[in-house]
Amino acid sequence: MDLNLTILGCHSATPRANAFPTSQYLEINNRHFLIDCGEGTQRQMRKYKIGFSKINHIFISHLHGDHFFGLIGLISTFGILNREKPLHIYGPKGIKEVTILQLKLSKSWTKYDIIFHELSSKESEVIFEDEKVTVKTIPLDHRVYTNGFLFTEKPKLKKLHIEKIKQYDEIEKCDYNNLKSGKDFKLSSGEIIPNNQLTLEPDTPKSFAFCSDTSYKPDIVPIIKDVDVLYHEATFLKDREDLCEKTKHSTAEQAASIADQANAGKLIIGHYSSRYKDIAEFKKEAETVFSNVELAEAGKRYSINSYPIEILN
Amino acid sequence: MDLNLTILGCHSATPRANAFPTSQYLEINNRHFLIDCGEGTQRQMRKYKIGFSKINHIFISHLHGDHFFGLIGLISTFGILNREKPLHIYGPKGIKEVTILQLKLSKSWTKYDIIFHELSSKESEVIFEDEKVTVKTIPLDHRVYTNGFLFTEKPKLKKLHIEKIKQYDEIEKCDYNNLKSGKDFKLSSGEIIPNNQLTLEPDTPKSFAFCSDTSYKPDIVPIIKDVDVLYHEATFLKDREDLCEKTKHSTAEQAASIADQANAGKLIIGHYSSRYKDIAEFKKEAETVFSNVELAEAGKRYSINSYPIEILN
Repeated sequence: MDLNLTILGCHSATPRANAFPTSQYLEINNRHFLIDCGEGTQRQMRKYKIGFSKINHIFISHLHGDHFFGLIGLISTFGILNREKPLHIYGPKGIKEVTILQLKLSKSWTKYDIIFHELSSKESEVIFEDEKVTVKTIPLDHRVYTNGFLFTEKPKLKKLHIEKIKQYDEIEKCDYNNLKSGKDFKLSSGEIIPNNQLTLEPDTPKSFAFCSDTSYKPDIVPIIKDVDVLYHEATFLKDREDLCEKTKHSTAEQAASIADQANAGKLIIGHYSSRYKDIAEFKKEAETVFSNVELAEAGKRYSINSYPIEILN
Repeated sequence: MDLNLTILGCHSATPRANAFPTSQYLEINNRHFLIDCGEGTQRQMRKYKIGFSKINHIFISHLHGDHFFGLIGLISTFGILNREKPLHIYGPKGIKEVTILQLKLSKSWTKYDIIFHELSSKESEVIFEDEKVTVKTIPLDHRVYTNGFLFTEKPKLKKLHIEKIKQYDEIEKCDYNNLKSGKDFKLSSGEIIPNNQLTLEPDTPKSFAFCSDTSYKPDIVPIIKDVDVLYHEATFLKDREDLCEKTKHSTAEQAASIADQANAGKLIIGHYSSRYKDIAEFKKEAETVFSNVELAEAGKRYSINSYPIEILN
């Protein structure tokens, strides 16, 4: 498993019986991230069998309700489930104050640590990095301070070419890590076996960009250039570009234009306004500009283990 | 329509795929009240077709998440729906601060007024009163400051006995209000027709008591004496009375004992702990003490227009 994305909610503004606000669950290189957390996210996680204990990092794009009103409930539920591991929360300044106040009022202090990473920079910055994954912000343009997030796998180790390795009795298991990291092997005779004769090229690191909510903002293109999968909001169709300008959202066509300029492998759109009855219209409009478009739908899971990208429902 | 109660959610602690936290919608004498507002309440309101614009008063028992984390989302949605009417919110001190902070962070000031009625008294008090309904608090015993609420119809006007009235040409429509309010009628001859010959007795005012969350607290009995319908939490069965003591909740048997002592017409129980797979056990236990017991279930609607009380699903 390299990269899986599960849509938990993908509609804008207000929850309805079968329309949940934004939340996505990303599995990338064995890291498990929650991105945005609208009201009802924890219920959707239960419904789609997302393990609560796997999540150690939550990324909140902005403080509009449809992107973060579910956060305090999830934090409380982690407490009820006797969580002990620290939880990292990345989001705009203010997220700490409002979370702490709610915990204080309900006298529900968590037994686990919550580490807040409050964001205020208007430039793209690395906010998470370990040996497997890097996360950097994508500054967006919305009515309040908003970031998208770019998740990138770190370059991977080379793969062992076991068949070739077996030809040399001198190469032992304890040498494998050196081979994986690209070193040549020196036989006792002094002969040097070049690394590329003993290994195969590693899998290409994969990447996912999450961009919601934002007006059309082509200056994010260099940040997300060549991303494998781009989620970009498409709140309106181009018949209501006036509403996009007023509310700082994008049309399906604008989302597709960003995907096209960024040379994305695939575009997923969502955050549909409730004024549209048939979301298929969004796909149709986006496809006039960019060919590889998917509609976000709650419960849909995208698996990016191989090309072409597979969709599992 | 006199009194209808719709259960929107009735499970304790954490929302699950098919278990929603506490919220109830009460229609009483043409007033429409929302009682508690756990996460997902607005979604449940959509599902069960509760008109958003009808609600002008929300009563929050306490500030644990499963009773109020859905409030800010509902307030925001009222704003998105262009509400103009003021909204009254009754709940523990602190509810104003946390609501205002969330609106401030999301730059989502409502265009309608929110009037907070913050409660801190440990004695029962009238917190709402108009010409049709009175609402008073029921001080409960929980881990944080908590009130239940008693909703009582005001005494009603007498009904016109049209058949009898028609026998007197002199009685005109403009006299009806005097008759309804109990006045005798004086004919031009000087003869007095006693009111009870021209009218029928009014419907008995009905009442509903909401008690969640609380440990067994028999001193609420005088406040809710002879209530028509009592909702009382039953988080555990009596096998886990130890947990009730620790968490300040009640068993089904204790809820039934309160209903019995208060001479309630009917008892509805809910707020079930997720440790119990079969909620029918709660009814069974309560019925050992009190005969007229119903299990709260999301979407169930109790109509108290007539006796025996009718349940509409």
